[in-house]
Amino acid sequence: MNLPTQPYKGSRDFYPEDKRVQKYMFGVLREVVESYGYQEYDAPILEPFEVYAAKTGEEIVSEQLYSFEDKGGRKVAIRPEMTPSVSRMVAGRRQELAYPLRWYSIPNLWRYERPQRGRLREHWQLNVDLFGVEGLEGDMEIIQVADSILTSFGAQRSDYQIRVNSRARMQNLFDELSLSDDERKLVTGLIDKKSKIDAAEFEQMFRDKLDENKAAQLLAYLNDSTEPDGIAELVRGLKDIGVENVSYDRSIVRGFDYYTDIVFEVYDTDPENNRSMFGGGRYDGLVGLFGVEPVPTVGFGMGDVTLQNFLVSHGLLKSKELALETDAAVILIGDIYGEAQKPLGELRAQGVRLAVDSSGRKLDAQIKNAVKSGVKYAIFIGEKELADNIYKLRDLEKGEEKALSLEQIASTLNVRRTE
Amino acid sequence: MNLPTQPYKGSRDFYPEDKRVQKYMFGVLREVVESYGYQEYDAPILEPFEVYAAKTGEEIVSEQLYSFEDKGGRKVAIRPEMTPSVSRMVAGRRQELAYPLRWYSIPNLWRYERPQRGRLREHWQLNVDLFGVEGLEGDMEIIQVADSILTSFGAQRSDYQIRVNSRARMQNLFDELSLSDDERKLVTGLIDKKSKIDAAEFEQMFRDKLDENKAAQLLAYLNDSTEPDGIAELVRGLKDIGVENVSYDRSIVRGFDYYTDIVFEVYDTDPENNRSMFGGGRYDGLVGLFGVEPVPTVGFGMGDVTLQNFLVSHGLLKSKELALETDAAVILIGDIYGEAQKPLGELRAQGVRLAVDSSGRKLDAQIKNAVKSGVKYAIFIGEKELADNIYKLRDLEKGEEKALSLEQIASTLNVRRTE
Repeated sequence: MNLPTQPYKGSRDFYPEDKRVQKYMFGVLREVVESYGYQEYDAPILEPFEVYAAKTGEEIVSEQLYSFEDKGGRKVAIRPEMTPSVSRMVAGRRQELAYPLRWYSIPNLWRYERPQRGRLREHWQLNVDLFGVEGLEGDMEIIQVADSILTSFGAQRSDYQIRVNSRARMQNLFDELSLSDDERKLVTGLIDKKSKIDAAEFEQMFRDKLDENKAAQLLAYLNDSTEPDGIAELVRGLKDIGVENVSYDRSIVRGFDYYTDIVFEVYDTDPENNRSMFGGGRYDGLVGLFGVEPVPTVGFGMGDVTLQNFLVSHGLLKSKELALETDAAVILIGDIYGEAQKPLGELRAQGVRLAVDSSGRKLDAQIKNAVKSGVKYAIFIGEKELADNIYKLRDLEKGEEKALSLEQIASTLNVRRTE
Repeated sequence: MNLPTQPYKGSRDFYPEDKRVQKYMFGVLREVVESYGYQEYDAPILEPFEVYAAKTGEEIVSEQLYSFEDKGGRKVAIRPEMTPSVSRMVAGRRQELAYPLRWYSIPNLWRYERPQRGRLREHWQLNVDLFGVEGLEGDMEIIQVADSILTSFGAQRSDYQIRVNSRARMQNLFDELSLSDDERKLVTGLIDKKSKIDAAEFEQMFRDKLDENKAAQLLAYLNDSTEPDGIAELVRGLKDIGVENVSYDRSIVRGFDYYTDIVFEVYDTDPENNRSMFGGGRYDGLVGLFGVEPVPTVGFGMGDVTLQNFLVSHGLLKSKELALETDAAVILIGDIYGEAQKPLGELRAQGVRLAVDSSGRKLDAQIKNAVKSGVKYAIFIGEKELADNIYKLRDLEKGEEKALSLEQIASTLNVRRTE
C-alpha cells in the first residue's frame, strides 16, 4: 500500500516557491513592527486545555479546538490563537518586565473547520500586543502599526478601510437593558452578521428574538453613528497622521470573549472581496486571569492567508521580491569534485550561494536541469578552468557567456542579488 | 481559580531574550545552507498517522508520538521528525522537480519523553536533504555542510568529531549470518550502546544474547577498524578539504529504520559533554514509499537544544549577536503624542526602530523603564524640541547627552546597529 502524498486536510505544504512568498511577507511584517519597538517572542504550540476554556469563546473551544489527552493523562490543546499564551507569559514575569511592553510573534495556529477561501485549519498569524498603556495612545499605536504594515506592502489607503468600535459602550447598554448572558450572546452574534444581510432583515431578527423595548433600544443604538468622545479623539488622531480611511462602526464586535473596550477590523475595499481581513482590540483583563495584577493590553492578529489574498488581488506581490535563494548552479566537467572545492569555498566565502551538480550526469542534462531549477546563472568548472583559475559564467536567461575570475564572478552575482 | 503561568511540561516559552538567541542561530544556519544551494520548505505540523507508522521506528511511534483522532475520526500525529514529511512532498512532485534537489527546513518537532538535558518534548531541528545524488559526492556534501555550520559559529575542528559508518555493510553481515528480525533489532540496539559501556561488558552482552558463532562474527566485525573502499574515499575526500576530524566508527547505527547506507554522527569533544549532538545518513527508499520511483537521498537533522548547549559550553554565543531589536526609547515631555508622530515617522523611514513611552507616567519613571528594558538610547521630545527640530539623544549606558537633528540621530543609531 502506498502512502498518500497530500498534506493533512486544510493544511498546506510549503514548497520552496511558496516558502519564499511566506518569507517575504514575514520579512516585511518583522521590519514594520520592529520599527515601532516590538520584540519577537514565541510559545509552545501545545498549551494546557484550561488556558482556552476560560476566555477564547465557546464556538472555538467546543467545536474548533484540536485537543486531546497526552500519554500522562493531561488534557492539552494545539493553540487556536496566541493571545492566551502571550498573556500567560506576561503574567509569569509580571514584575520583571518593563512597560510599555511591546511584543510580537508569528505563530502557526490550528482550528478544526471546513476549509474555504481565506480559512484553513492551519494558518500563520502575526500577533502584535502593547502592554501597559491604558490611554487612547495605545489604541492609536496599534491601529497605526496595522496601517503601516499594509502601506509598507505598497497598498493605497483606498484599498482597505479600518472600522473601530467600543465594546465597553455596548456592554454598558447591555447592563442598562439587564440582558441575560444568553441574550448578550444572541445579540452579539446578531450584530456580527449586520454587514452580511440587508437592513430590513437585520431589524426583523431583533424584533423576532427580543422583547419590543430591548429590540428598539438596541436598534436605535446601532443606527446612531454619533462618535462618542474617546472614539472621536481616536479617529481624529489617526486622520492627523494620514490614516484617513478610518471610521466608526457600531456593528464591529469581534469573536473573542476577552475584549473589554476598543475593537477594530480592517476591510478589503475590493468589491470582489469586501470582507474583514483582520482585527484586534483592547483586552485589559486577560493577564489577570493568571493570578497577577491585570495589565492594560491592546493588540491585533493578522493571518497569512487573508494577507496573501489581499496582496495578490491588489497586485502587490512582486516576483522580484521572491528570487531564488541560490545564485548559480555549478557544472563540473569531468571527475573533479574534490579539486573544485577550493574555488567553490572561495566563492561561498564571498557570499555567493552555489548549488553543485554532483549527479555525474552528462553536461547537457546538467544544463537542462539548471534551467529547470530556475537559477539564473551557471558556472562551468573543468581541469582547464582550475589550471587557469578563470571560469565560464553563463547567464541562463540570455544565453551569454563570459570567462571571469572568481572575484569577477562574485561581484557579478552579488550585484544581481541586490538589484 | 488562577491559571498556571508555566508552559506545558517539556516545552519552552521564548521570551524576547530567548527568541533573539534562536533568531541568531537560525540566521547562521540559513546563511550556511543557502551558500550550498539549499532552499527552504515547510510542511504542516500535523500529518496523517500512517506517515510515521511505516518507517520512523517502533520506540518513537509506540511510546513517543503525540497522536490522536481529529473531530472527523481521522488519526493524526504531531510530527516527531521531518524526514517523512519531506519525502512525501518530494514524492508528490517527483517529476516536476529538478535534481539534484537541495531542500532545508527548521521545523519544530514533538516527542513525548521525560525532559532532561538536551532532550525536550518540543524542539526545533534544522533538516538538510540532498535528493538525486547516488554517489559519494552526496554523502560528502552533506557532511561538509554539517561541518561548515559548526565552523561558521566559530567552532574549532578540535571541538567536535565526525564519525561515519555504512549501514549497508552491517546489513550485509546480518544477511550472511541469517539474523532474524528480532535479532537484528537486538544487535542494532546493543551496538548503539557501545560508546556508553566498557568493552568487556559490551562483548559479554553479545555472548549472553546470541549463539557463539554469531556473537564472535559480529564482535570481529565491530572490532575491525579497516576502512572499506567507499568509506576510505569519503574520509580522504573530507580530509582533503580540511575536515580532518572525521573517522570511521562501526558502532554508529542511528535510531531510524529508514537508513540504507552511510550514517554519521557528530560528537562534542568536551569531556563534560562527550556525546552525540546530531547526525544523519543516506535513506534511498523513503520517497518510494509514497508510490513513486525512489530517489537517492542523503541528509541530516540538527536540534536547536544540543546546538545551543554546544555553543554555550564552547563560549561561542556572543552577546553582540544578540542585540535588542529596538534602537531607542522615545520619551515624550508633555501631552504631545500626536505632534511627535511626524519626526518619529521620519526616523522610522530611515530605518530607526523606536519604542515610544506612551504610558503618561512621570519623566523619571519613563527613563527608569527605558534602562530596565535594556535599550541603549533614549530620545527626548517636547514642545521646544519640536519647534527647533533638534532633539536630545541620551546614551543610557554612558549617560552622555547630545542635541541632534533627526538625520544625525539616524546616522548615530544606524552606525551603532552594524558595529
